Amino acid sequence: MSETDCIFCKIVKGKIPSHKIYEDENFLAFLDINPQSPGHTQVIPKKHFRWVWNLPGGQVPGNIGDYFKVVQKIALAQQKAFNTDFILSKIIGDEVEHAHIWVYPGELPSQSFGESSKTDLEGNAEKIRKAI
Amino acid sequence: MSETDCIFCKIVKGKIPSHKIYEDENFLAFLDINPQSPGHTQVIPKKHFRWVWNLPGGQVPGNIGDYFKVVQKIALAQQKAFNTDFILSKIIGDEVEHAHIWVYPGELPSQSFGESSKTDLEGNAEKIRKAI
Repeated sequence: MSETDCIFCKIVKGKIPSHKIYEDENFLAFLDINPQSPGHTQVIPKKHFRWVWNLPGGQVPGNIGDYFKVVQKIALAQQKAFNTDFILSKIIGDEVEHAHIWVYPGELPSQSFGESSKTDLEGNAEKIRKAI
Repeated sequence: MSETDCIFCKIVKGKIPSHKIYEDENFLAFLDINPQSPGHTQVIPKKHFRWVWNLPGGQVPGNIGDYFKVVQKIALAQQKAFNTDFILSKIIGDEVEHAHIWVYPGELPSQSFGESSKTDLEGNAEKIRKAI
């Protein structure tokens, strides 16, 4: 898949709208449109990489360590926003061919997200943004 | 759970044996004894943290960015060792109350791991160690 056809590259460029949670020079976090739970976020590098493991290591800007610091930022904000310790993260990567990490509050049998609905994307985005 | 009772702390201290893949001052990687696929690895901080998200950020030694650089190292070695691009990683964390990240070759319907058996722990550990 070329970058031109990549749906995540289009989101980075603003050609496809998204519910943005966080953005810096190298990374973007936005809500998944098919959430597993309220606030389910995709964290991606702005540059096109096929797999998470293809990001540079070392100390270069936008390295894989910086990537995971952004994931942590989102996870900690989700803990506050949805009042849960249990934040899951998954790296699978066969659905969209642009590196991405899922971060979302885990659904335990005993878990309640209160008033938060999975489908209230903008409401959930705002809750997470306020908690960052 | 206290550190004294923590099974992963016992593995760090060598009180419980493990198939080690990688070790540095702050992190340890070893094979999961109930592998999802050949080479299924647990990457943990040596220090006891309840959740992955509790690791320090910033630039302190053993920060969450360093943690993920170790995860990348293992994933890249697994790609070579098992001849697959498709390496999954999951952070769930309710099974053992010590921060841990799973890294393993994904099982696709079309996937073959050749001679590698999930249960040949020492053989798989050696394959990954050689590929690091």
